[in-house]
Amino acid sequence: MHQTFRLIIDCPDQVGLVARVSQFLADHDASILEASHHTDVQTGRFFMRHEISTDSLTLSYDRFIEEFTPLANEFQMQWKVTDSSKRQRVALLSSVESHCLVDILHRWHTGELHCDIPCIIGNHPQMKQFADWYKVPFHWVDFKTLGKENAFKQIEVLLDEYAIDLTVLARFMQILPDNLCSKLAGRAINIHHSFLPSFAGAKPYQQAYDRGVKLIGATCHYVTRDLDEGPIIEQSVKRISHSDTAADMVRKGKDCEVNALATGVRNHLEDRVIIHHNKTVVFA
Amino acid sequence: MHQTFRLIIDCPDQVGLVARVSQFLADHDASILEASHHTDVQTGRFFMRHEISTDSLTLSYDRFIEEFTPLANEFQMQWKVTDSSKRQRVALLSSVESHCLVDILHRWHTGELHCDIPCIIGNHPQMKQFADWYKVPFHWVDFKTLGKENAFKQIEVLLDEYAIDLTVLARFMQILPDNLCSKLAGRAINIHHSFLPSFAGAKPYQQAYDRGVKLIGATCHYVTRDLDEGPIIEQSVKRISHSDTAADMVRKGKDCEVNALATGVRNHLEDRVIIHHNKTVVFA
Amino acid sequence: MHQTFRLIIDCPDQVGLVARVSQFLADHDASILEASHHTDVQTGRFFMRHEISTDSLTLSYDRFIEEFTPLANEFQMQWKVTDSSKRQRVALLSSVESHCLVDILHRWHTGELHCDIPCIIGNHPQMKQFADWYKVPFHWVDFKTLGKENAFKQIEVLLDEYAIDLTVLARFMQILPDNLCSKLAGRAINIHHSFLPSFAGAKPYQQAYDRGVKLIGATCHYVTRDLDEGPIIEQSVKRISHSDTAADMVRKGKDCEVNALATGVRNHLEDRVIIHHNKTVVFA
Amino acid sequence: MHQTFRLIIDCPDQVGLVARVSQFLADHDASILEASHHTDVQTGRFFMRHEISTDSLTLSYDRFIEEFTPLANEFQMQWKVTDSSKRQRVALLSSVESHCLVDILHRWHTGELHCDIPCIIGNHPQMKQFADWYKVPFHWVDFKTLGKENAFKQIEVLLDEYAIDLTVLARFMQILPDNLCSKLAGRAINIHHSFLPSFAGAKPYQQAYDRGVKLIGATCHYVTRDLDEGPIIEQSVKRISHSDTAADMVRKGKDCEVNALATGVRNHLEDRVIIHHNKTVVFA
Repeated sequence: MHQTFRLIIDCPDQVGLVARVSQFLADHDASILEASHHTDVQTGRFFMRHEISTDSLTLSYDRFIEEFTPLANEFQMQWKVTDSSKRQRVALLSSVESHCLVDILHRWHTGELHCDIPCIIGNHPQMKQFADWYKVPFHWVDFKTLGKENAFKQIEVLLDEYAIDLTVLARFMQILPDNLCSKLAGRAINIHHSFLPSFAGAKPYQQAYDRGVKLIGATCHYVTRDLDEGPIIEQSVKRISHSDTAADMVRKGKDCEVNALATGVRNHLEDRVIIHHNKTVVFA
Repeated sequence: MHQTFRLIIDCPDQVGLVARVSQFLADHDASILEASHHTDVQTGRFFMRHEISTDSLTLSYDRFIEEFTPLANEFQMQWKVTDSSKRQRVALLSSVESHCLVDILHRWHTGELHCDIPCIIGNHPQMKQFADWYKVPFHWVDFKTLGKENAFKQIEVLLDEYAIDLTVLARFMQILPDNLCSKLAGRAINIHHSFLPSFAGAKPYQQAYDRGVKLIGATCHYVTRDLDEGPIIEQSVKRISHSDTAADMVRKGKDCEVNALATGVRNHLEDRVIIHHNKTVVFA
Repeated sequence: MHQTFRLIIDCPDQVGLVARVSQFLADHDASILEASHHTDVQTGRFFMRHEISTDSLTLSYDRFIEEFTPLANEFQMQWKVTDSSKRQRVALLSSVESHCLVDILHRWHTGELHCDIPCIIGNHPQMKQFADWYKVPFHWVDFKTLGKENAFKQIEVLLDEYAIDLTVLARFMQILPDNLCSKLAGRAINIHHSFLPSFAGAKPYQQAYDRGVKLIGATCHYVTRDLDEGPIIEQSVKRISHSDTAADMVRKGKDCEVNALATGVRNHLEDRVIIHHNKTVVFA
Repeated sequence: MHQTFRLIIDCPDQVGLVARVSQFLADHDASILEASHHTDVQTGRFFMRHEISTDSLTLSYDRFIEEFTPLANEFQMQWKVTDSSKRQRVALLSSVESHCLVDILHRWHTGELHCDIPCIIGNHPQMKQFADWYKVPFHWVDFKTLGKENAFKQIEVLLDEYAIDLTVLARFMQILPDNLCSKLAGRAINIHHSFLPSFAGAKPYQQAYDRGVKLIGATCHYVTRDLDEGPIIEQSVKRISHSDTAADMVRKGKDCEVNALATGVRNHLEDRVIIHHNKTVVFA
């Protein structure tokens, strides 16, 4: 695995922009492993992602930021450069279903997901067994005893104390309060067990069963104040038929959930996702 | 292609039912090419489809009906037996988009779809060119001149005169009046250009573009009074990304429409679809 | 979950067969939850699977066998009836890759796969950590020290001692000797990391990368003497592009492997798979 | 539809390359609608495609070539710039199956495929009916009368006379002679009715049926001297089961063929495909 810097740019589209950025990179001997561009013609917005071999560069991370800033300001960029050797800190929020949680943990354990997982938080205690095995501290925040407001305050404290970069709701069945949604904007990912916008809200598999659809799915999206309305990162579907019961749909849907969440989280961790209004650019 | 009788049964589930039906078939030497069963546990309803080699049977179509009727009555069946050598008469309703129309015509022309197509009806004249080539009479019903009510009366007259069994709305962009929906219940198939229930109503591709979904689709369903709410026969999806414009989504979506409609129509023509409340059993 | 008997029949196609079997079931008050039929026209062979609610039946498992045997003999059936409450005993054979092993274990742990897993056998010790957590005895059979012949003898002893019904090669990278293939015929399932028959043999992902295919896949099949040639139960594919390295293909392929193996094993455990020559009938 | 220039570059990877190309484009006010890059790390080869709004450019097509040439030479580029307003001339080679031919013709007729189709050539006369309707000259080259060698000479003459840019073998069941393969290298596209490299050669659906695979497919590839071994542009698959006969597989496979060929041809016509050794980079 190469050490890389990832340069992510989001700015008004202008002639000469790519030339200037490319020249900057060439001036510092950047060996570019991946480069992706996208222009949103409707909004005149330009998006760019470069993955650069760290070894090739003649400047450090701090110097990169310092030297690139004037160019970024000139082109009114929203931008960041990240260092792949600095792993993001991910908190997993769980409830009683283990499939998404265990899948993320296993991909992390085997090195497929490059991140640290300093804590798992559950509104029920059941997931502690998996946390223990993977040697990740588990915090049971008891919503029943604490009440919803205090419970979320405690979660917020935990996320702060652990200096969490990304919060993943791995079938966490609680709705985040508005202030937490705002605080975690662009840094909290949910998996919804339907092919959104179909079957938003509760019991999507039962809704799908009742409607008689021929495909079920799952949607990985950023958490926003508007429940199930956040920017979609990834969706996955599976074919079903009349012979599938609601229970069969739950079983098949779990595979969709696992796949969509793992893909969404990996793309986020590799800085491949840029949020634009209520949509995403995903340089996968 | 074998000549077959297709026996379709929909009745309350009861012990002994399959034995009695199977015994009836055995008593008349039926060679069964396909047999499919389904029990809807929630409603206690049983569905069965047999495809029987005509040559093997020791009774004619009329005698089959006569002899099977007592058994059907005993078990309170809704049932039918159809003869594959008697082709259904299909009317295609069209507007200005040709992709679904031409696909259906070509599959019919090459013998993939076993039916007659005695007429094509358009609310615009553009599809006449394709109708002419396939030597199918084309009727332009001019909604602008006639007004919607009279136009649909004229369509109803045409469907009656041509003794149409199945009406296929091949991207016909007009909403059928309630009385026609009722009259054609279970005998009119529509293709909606979204993955229903997502993006019901107008401009589904624009809706999908605006929502930023990562998969688009199409839905083939029976026409009912509740627009876009009828029993779904088939759905098809295709992956898209941020780089797809609304125009790209239209282009990719057309392939979904073509596939879902062709599959839905074929399954209907082969008596593989049974409507149960607002859902379908599809013995594909 | 219902307790069920599953009646699996494989015999020459004959008129009256279904009637007789159905009458037998009706005579004993069988409530049929699922019934599936298939006729292989080329070989004149008939396949049938019934899933029957145990509670509905007026005879025990042993009496069922006793009473059905004359009918089975009359129609020259290869047949079995299984009791869903009697779980199959599954051994997992592993090497150094954990993704398939952990996925099967997790589906078993959460009750999705109805079986017992009395042991895991590894030709390397690495998987012991997962076995320990799931509290399954782990046996390291050291191929280097023992030599291949003795190692497989030891595996055979273990399979016998644990009275194993189904052996699952969860990315076990050793080729079974002929005698063991014969002994386990129809009771050993392998996952091959390619879309067979493409890229049989070693390093399929590298082969796929070198050939420049646009989809990769995995194949779940029964083990036979002819390596990678056994009856296929399930296949799964995923789209790739020029930007995927051989390492990306390995990562994406793992998801195919996990899905194909889990589906294949579940279908086998639910007696949904019938081997016919070198192919399978899968009543999924 | 924008008028665009498409700049396609294939050269050794070097620092500064993108900067120089981007600067060249910026110097001539290029508004870049799409930019795609790929580095093949194994071979150190770099691939780039730009789609540039013609209106934005301050130089003509001829001047573009003239001015870009020194830069191209400096970086040892294999390169081309194409003008989207200059349609490629496509010949369709047909036999007796119409599905691929009619699909391509319809997409061309409705403007989805931007090209001219000046002629259709058939080794059998059946496709003339479709050619006539679309008002495309049809040439029946009678292989039986002429013999294979003379027949192909006549085809070569036709391709020359019509100044064909791209030859599409739309289920043309004849193997091109080596000299024609060489002459048309990178300019002839075939659709093979299997998921290559599985089932290369004759009767792939029968091969697939005999092997008992659970997915069938089709492969769109460039024609080379090594039959069925050319660089793959696109592949498409569809799920099948034991209940599909070889005839069902043919029917389902046709949809794969149609989709893979249409996608492959469109990508080629939009200069999205670059051949690299025996593989393709597809900037789709």
